[in-house]
Amino acid sequence: MRLKLSMALAVLFGTAAHGAERARDLGIPFEGVPGALNAITDVKGVTVGHATLHGKSEAGKAIHTGVTAILPRGAASGSTPVFGAWFAQNGNGEMTGTAWIDESGYVEGPVMLTNTHSVGVVRDAVIAYRVGQGDADASGYWWSLPVVAETWDGHLSDINGFHVKPAHAIAAIENAKGGAVPEGNVGGGSGMVCHEFKCGIGTASRTVSVDKRAYTVGALVQANYGLRDSLRIAGVPVGQHLRNDRVYSEAMPKPADTGSIIIVLATDAPLLPHQLKRIAKRATMGLARMGSYAGNGSGDIFLAFSTAKPADRDGAPSTAEFIGNERIDPLFEASVQATEEAIVNAMVAARDVLDGIDGNYAKAIDHRALIDLMKHHQRYQKPTGTK
Amino acid sequence: MRLKLSMALAVLFGTAAHGAERARDLGIPFEGVPGALNAITDVKGVTVGHATLHGKSEAGKAIHTGVTAILPRGAASGSTPVFGAWFAQNGNGEMTGTAWIDESGYVEGPVMLTNTHSVGVVRDAVIAYRVGQGDADASGYWWSLPVVAETWDGHLSDINGFHVKPAHAIAAIENAKGGAVPEGNVGGGSGMVCHEFKCGIGTASRTVSVDKRAYTVGALVQANYGLRDSLRIAGVPVGQHLRNDRVYSEAMPKPADTGSIIIVLATDAPLLPHQLKRIAKRATMGLARMGSYAGNGSGDIFLAFSTAKPADRDGAPSTAEFIGNERIDPLFEASVQATEEAIVNAMVAARDVLDGIDGNYAKAIDHRALIDLMKHHQRYQKPTGTK
Amino acid sequence: MRLKLSMALAVLFGTAAHGAERARDLGIPFEGVPGALNAITDVKGVTVGHATLHGKSEAGKAIHTGVTAILPRGAASGSTPVFGAWFAQNGNGEMTGTAWIDESGYVEGPVMLTNTHSVGVVRDAVIAYRVGQGDADASGYWWSLPVVAETWDGHLSDINGFHVKPAHAIAAIENAKGGAVPEGNVGGGSGMVCHEFKCGIGTASRTVSVDKRAYTVGALVQANYGLRDSLRIAGVPVGQHLRNDRVYSEAMPKPADTGSIIIVLATDAPLLPHQLKRIAKRATMGLARMGSYAGNGSGDIFLAFSTAKPADRDGAPSTAEFIGNERIDPLFEASVQATEEAIVNAMVAARDVLDGIDGNYAKAIDHRALIDLMKHHQRYQKPTGTK
Amino acid sequence: MRLKLSMALAVLFGTAAHGAERARDLGIPFEGVPGALNAITDVKGVTVGHATLHGKSEAGKAIHTGVTAILPRGAASGSTPVFGAWFAQNGNGEMTGTAWIDESGYVEGPVMLTNTHSVGVVRDAVIAYRVGQGDADASGYWWSLPVVAETWDGHLSDINGFHVKPAHAIAAIENAKGGAVPEGNVGGGSGMVCHEFKCGIGTASRTVSVDKRAYTVGALVQANYGLRDSLRIAGVPVGQHLRNDRVYSEAMPKPADTGSIIIVLATDAPLLPHQLKRIAKRATMGLARMGSYAGNGSGDIFLAFSTAKPADRDGAPSTAEFIGNERIDPLFEASVQATEEAIVNAMVAARDVLDGIDGNYAKAIDHRALIDLMKHHQRYQKPTGTK
Repeated sequence: MRLKLSMALAVLFGTAAHGAERARDLGIPFEGVPGALNAITDVKGVTVGHATLHGKSEAGKAIHTGVTAILPRGAASGSTPVFGAWFAQNGNGEMTGTAWIDESGYVEGPVMLTNTHSVGVVRDAVIAYRVGQGDADASGYWWSLPVVAETWDGHLSDINGFHVKPAHAIAAIENAKGGAVPEGNVGGGSGMVCHEFKCGIGTASRTVSVDKRAYTVGALVQANYGLRDSLRIAGVPVGQHLRNDRVYSEAMPKPADTGSIIIVLATDAPLLPHQLKRIAKRATMGLARMGSYAGNGSGDIFLAFSTAKPADRDGAPSTAEFIGNERIDPLFEASVQATEEAIVNAMVAARDVLDGIDGNYAKAIDHRALIDLMKHHQRYQKPTGTK
Repeated sequence: MRLKLSMALAVLFGTAAHGAERARDLGIPFEGVPGALNAITDVKGVTVGHATLHGKSEAGKAIHTGVTAILPRGAASGSTPVFGAWFAQNGNGEMTGTAWIDESGYVEGPVMLTNTHSVGVVRDAVIAYRVGQGDADASGYWWSLPVVAETWDGHLSDINGFHVKPAHAIAAIENAKGGAVPEGNVGGGSGMVCHEFKCGIGTASRTVSVDKRAYTVGALVQANYGLRDSLRIAGVPVGQHLRNDRVYSEAMPKPADTGSIIIVLATDAPLLPHQLKRIAKRATMGLARMGSYAGNGSGDIFLAFSTAKPADRDGAPSTAEFIGNERIDPLFEASVQATEEAIVNAMVAARDVLDGIDGNYAKAIDHRALIDLMKHHQRYQKPTGTK
Repeated sequence: MRLKLSMALAVLFGTAAHGAERARDLGIPFEGVPGALNAITDVKGVTVGHATLHGKSEAGKAIHTGVTAILPRGAASGSTPVFGAWFAQNGNGEMTGTAWIDESGYVEGPVMLTNTHSVGVVRDAVIAYRVGQGDADASGYWWSLPVVAETWDGHLSDINGFHVKPAHAIAAIENAKGGAVPEGNVGGGSGMVCHEFKCGIGTASRTVSVDKRAYTVGALVQANYGLRDSLRIAGVPVGQHLRNDRVYSEAMPKPADTGSIIIVLATDAPLLPHQLKRIAKRATMGLARMGSYAGNGSGDIFLAFSTAKPADRDGAPSTAEFIGNERIDPLFEASVQATEEAIVNAMVAARDVLDGIDGNYAKAIDHRALIDLMKHHQRYQKPTGTK
Repeated sequence: MRLKLSMALAVLFGTAAHGAERARDLGIPFEGVPGALNAITDVKGVTVGHATLHGKSEAGKAIHTGVTAILPRGAASGSTPVFGAWFAQNGNGEMTGTAWIDESGYVEGPVMLTNTHSVGVVRDAVIAYRVGQGDADASGYWWSLPVVAETWDGHLSDINGFHVKPAHAIAAIENAKGGAVPEGNVGGGSGMVCHEFKCGIGTASRTVSVDKRAYTVGALVQANYGLRDSLRIAGVPVGQHLRNDRVYSEAMPKPADTGSIIIVLATDAPLLPHQLKRIAKRATMGLARMGSYAGNGSGDIFLAFSTAKPADRDGAPSTAEFIGNERIDPLFEASVQATEEAIVNAMVAARDVLDGIDGNYAKAIDHRALIDLMKHHQRYQKPTGTK
C-alpha cells in the first residue's frame, strides 16, 4: 500500500486540483456581503490544511478519505487558545474535546475533521505532534484534549481499512495556510456525499459592521448529510427536480438520512464563550435553509470560535473585549448566511467519484441544471465577479 | 374598565370570528400530508382555548392581548401528565416550569401562552384553579410548576397595564376544545406581530406512517418574531418584495429583532422524553425556513409533548412504548413542516390592528400580493381543498 | 386579615428579631476564611431584604411565608446587570428568568425568593415596580424576565391561600440593605423546613486570594430540603443521632424528600458567565456535604453572579476582566464551603414554629445536642469570635 | 519492550494480585446495603476487564498504565445497547461518544477507561474489533461512536510514550468477566493518584427495594483527582491529619488539582435515559462527600446506564419499563453511597508505586492510620464480614 499512498500524498501537498466554480459563480443568489476570499480564511489568522487520500488499498479497495485541519491562529494555535463553543443539533457523531470547550470556554489547538473511523488516530496524533514540539510542560493536560470531528465516508471509501495515519493528520496541520481554501473532494471531505450528490468541504464568509467596526464570520463545512428529496437551494426545491443518480433508488423504501455535517464558524468579532454558543446554534438555521431536518443518523455538530481575544489562558486577571448582546444580530445573520453558502459551495465544488468501494459512486450536482432551475424560479442572479 | 373587559369576554367565549383563509388556501406550497384539521387538535385529545382581550383601558389605552391554553389531554390534563421536553433556540423569553420538564420528563397540566408581563398572574392562576378543583393532595407539588410562556405585545397593547387577570387564564382553560383552532388575532396572539406583519396564533399538522402505523404531529405557534427583510415563505424571499407598512421605517437604522416565537409541538407517536427533546429542536428548522436567524431579542422557545404514554407518573414500574430512533425521521420531518406551515397560517389568518397603543398599528400580509409572488416564482400550487 | 398582616409587616421592616448564634458560634468547624460579616453582603454592593409574614388568615389558617430579595448591585440593580449563570442539580422547582440568563450571560434586576405558589405574583410585581420607576423604555423587554425562585412551605403555612401580595415583593426590594443578614424564619424562609428541622434563610462567605488580590464569595440559601436520616454536619452523621420531632414519624414508611433548596452565590471576583456556571455547579458539592442526595421532590436550583463587570449590557464593544481558569480553584473551594456553612446557619438560626397549618409544627435543631455531638466526634472547635 | 509488556500481560489476565482489604474491612462506616460482591458486577450481566501495563519502555521510562473495559451486557454488549446518560461536573477530560448518548439515550458497546493520551488508540481499536467480529453492517455507524474516557497518569507513567496499543484495548474487552473486580493499581487505574495517595480503580454497590422489587446500583471509578488537604473519609477530615508523602510539597505554593475522576454507575433498575441523567448527576454528590470541590484541572465525568431494557434499538415501537420519578429516591441515595465507597475502595486497594517516571512516586494510604482516625472520631465500625 505504501506506493499508492505516496501517490495520494502527492495530491495531499498540492494545491486545489480543479479550477472549480463556486456557487455564486453559477448565479445562485445569497444574502449578505462576503469577505475577499469568501472563505473561513477571511478571518485573519485562520489557516486551513488538507491531507487527501484517493487511491486503492493493497486489497484493492477504494480509498477516498483524508483529514482537514483548521488552525484558529495558524501556527500559533498550539500556544494561544481562542474562545469557543459548540452545539449539536443532532449528536449522531463525534467531536472530541467538547467537554473541555464547555467548561473552559476555549478551543485549544487545531480543529481536525476526518472520517468516522479515524477520529482516534487523528486525536492521538495531535497530542504526539505537540509533545514532539516541546509543548509538553507539566501542566500540559490542556493540550491533551484535541478537537476532532468526523463524518462517515464508508459509502465511497474503505473506512474499515483505517487508512488515515498519524502522518496524514500532521500533514494537514503543517500544510495549513491562509488564502483560498480548496473545496469539494479534498481533505476530510474527500469521500463525502450530501443530498445524494458528491459533496465534501465548502467554505464561505460574510463581513458585517457593528458599531462602525467591520467584522468577518467564516464558515467551513464537511458536508455529508441529507437525502435528495429535501434539498433546497436558495429556497428552490432543487431536490424535487434533479432526480438523477440518487444514492438510494427511487424504488427503494425511503432510506434513513445517515449522513452528517460538521460546521465550523470562525469570527474575529470579540465574543465571549456563551455568545459563541449562540453563534454555533445559528449553524442549524443555515443548514435548515438547505431543507435538512437533521435526520436521526446525521451527526450535525457545530463549533464556533473567536480569534479576537489574545491568549492569557492561565494568567492573572486578564480582559476580554466583547460585543453587547444587543448588537450581536448582524453576526447571527452572517453565521446563518455563511453556513448556507458554504454548504452549497461544497456541493458545487465537488466532482464525481465513480470508483467508490463496492462499486458505489456519487455524482456531483449538474451545474447547468442548477442554473436552469434558478432561472425558472426567478432566482437567478447574474454573477458579478468570481469568489 | 369593567365594562370594556366584559365586552372582551364576549369575544373570549365565542368561536373564531373571521372566516379566514389559511396559507394553503392561497396556493402556498407545503410538503407533507396534513391531518384532517391541519391543526394541533388533530392529535387526539389535545384541546385549545383562547381568552381574547380587545378593548381600551380606563385610561384609554389600547388592549390587544389574551391567553391561549393548550391542554395535552383535554380535561384530563390535570391528573394525567404527558411526556415532554423543551428547547430554547434563543432564550430571550420566559417559559416557566422548564426545570421540572427537564428533570421529570413530564409536562403536567395545561400549557399557557400569554404576553410577557402576564406570565406571573397566569402561572399562579393555574395553581389556584387546580387547588379549587381539589387536586391539592399532600404531594401536590408537581402541579405547582405550571408551564406558561410568553411573547411581547407591547407594540400594540398596553402591556404595562397588566390587563390579563386570573379569570382570563381560567377562561382559556375552560374554553379549550378540540376541532378547528381559531388563528390570528386571538388568545395570546391577539397583539402579536411577525416579520412586521400582524400575526398571532397559527397551527398546522402532519400525518406520517412509521412501521405502518399512522401518527400525527401538530404545531401551534404564538408568533411575534422577525424583521421584514428576512421573511421567506415557501423559499420565496417575500420580505424583500413586500415592503409596505413596516413597523420600522426604511429610514430607520436597522432595528433589532425584538420579537419572539413560542412553538408547541404535539404528537400521538410514542416517544420518550429525550426523543421529544429532539422533536423540540426541529422547531428551529421550521422557523429557519421562514428566514429567521433567531435575533438576540427574540425568545424562541419550543415545547414538545407526546400524548401516547398513559399516566402512571408515580406508580410502580410502568411501561412506555416508544419508537426506535432509527424510525424517527418521519416525525422529525413532520415537525419541521408543521412548524413552517403554522407560522405562515398565523400570518395569513391575522387581521389588521389599526388602533394600537401610542398610535402604533400592524397590518396583515396582503393575500393577493402573496399569491402573486408565489406565481412569479413558480411556486404557486393550486388549492385543492380548504384546510 | 388586614390587621394581622400589618402585624406581620411590623416584623418585616424590623431587624432580625432573635439574637441568634450562628453555626460557628456553636463550635462547628468549617474550612476557609469567612468575610467580615460571614454573609453574602460581604460581597460589596450586594443587599438583602426580607418581607416576613407570620400570622393567620381570615379563615384562621396559619401563615408563615414571605419574600427575600437579593439585589446584586443594591439600588443600582435595576439599571446595571451582573454576569450570571444558573444550574439545577434537581429541577423540581421554579426559577424564572433562566432561559435569558443562559442566553445573555446576565442576571438583570433583583433575585427574589418566595414560596412555590407565589412565584407569579412576585414576578409580575417586579416588572410593575420597574415600570413604576420609569425604567420602561421601548427596548425594556430585558427587565421583563425577572428571576424568582421558590421552595414549598405548605407544611407550615397556608400556601393555597396565596397570601403573598405585590406589596410584599416590593417591600423586600425596598427593605434591602447591606450589613448583617437576618437568618432563619425570615423572608422567603419563614416557613421552611430542612432535614425535618425548622430551617429557612442562611448565609455565609469566604475570602480568598488569587494572584495576590482578595476576593469574596458569598452564599445565601433558602433551605427546605432533606430528611433527617441523611443529615451530616461537618462530617458528623447528626441525623442518625438527633431523632426528635421528625416531620415524618419513625413508624411511617420512608417518606420522599419533597423539599427544595435555592442557593445563591455572589462574588466580586471577575468571572465570565461560563465560569459562573462552574461556580453554580459547586453549590451541589456544598449541599452534598450535608448528606443530601437531591431527592426527586427537591428543587435544588442554584444561581451565581459576579458583581465585577460594570454595566454596558448593550454598548459598543466593552471589556470584561476575568480570572484565568487555572487560577479559579480557590473560588470553587470557597463556593463549596460558603454553601455548606450557609445551610448550617439557616438551621441554627431557625426557631421553632409550633402553630403551623393543620396542626403541623417544626422544631429547630437543639444547639446543645449539636455541640455535644461535635465534641463526641472530636470535631468541636472552640469559637473564637462571633460571626 | 516486547518482553516487558508480555510480563505486564501476564498480570493482565491474572486475577487481582494482592489480597487487598477493602474499605469496610478497615472499619470505615458506610450507609446502605451492598450487594454480594460490593462491586459493579453485582448488576447482573455487567462484566469488567483490565489490561495492566507495569514496566519500562525501551528508553527506560516507567510505564504504569492500562485499560479497563466495562461491558454493560457482557459479551452481548456489542449487539444490544443499554439506556444511558452522562454528566460532567467538571469537563476537563475526555469521554468520547457522549453526543450520541445524549441524542439516542443509548450506550452502545463497551465503556473503556484509559490514560489521557490513549483515548484515540482505544477508540479506534474498539471499532476495529467490532469490524473484525462482523458487526459491520451497512447501518453500522452506531457502533462507530465508542465510549472511551480517561484520566492523566503522567505523574507516574511515560504518558508521552503512547504505550497503550490496540491489543491492550482488545485484551481488556476479552478479559472482561463477572465476579469480584480487581481494584487499585490495575487497568486504567494503574498509574492513578488521588488526594496525593496512590489510587486507581475502585468499585462498590448498593441494593435497594422499590415497590418490593430489589434493584442494584453499582459504581466503578477510575480515581485520579484531588489534593490531600480536602480529603474526607466518612466525614472525617483525613487529609488534614495524614500529611506524609504528599505529591506536592508543603513548602510549595498550593498546587492546582489537576487530576480527574471517571465514575460509571450501572443499575438493573428500569430507568429511562432522562432518569439515568439524574443518576449520573448524583455521582457528584458521592464525590463531594470525599471533600472534592472539582478543581479546574479535574475531569470529573460520569456515566450511568441501566441494563433493564432489552435491545430493540431500531425496532418497531417497543416498550420500556421504568420506575416512576416519585419512587426513584432509593436509587439516588444508592448512587451517592456506591460512588463514595468505590472511591475509598480505590484508595484502600492501591499499593505504593515507588518507581514512577522522573523519580516520582505515590504511596498508598496507611491503613492503620486510617483505622486510628476512624476510632479517634468515633466513626470506626467493626467489620462484620469481608466484602
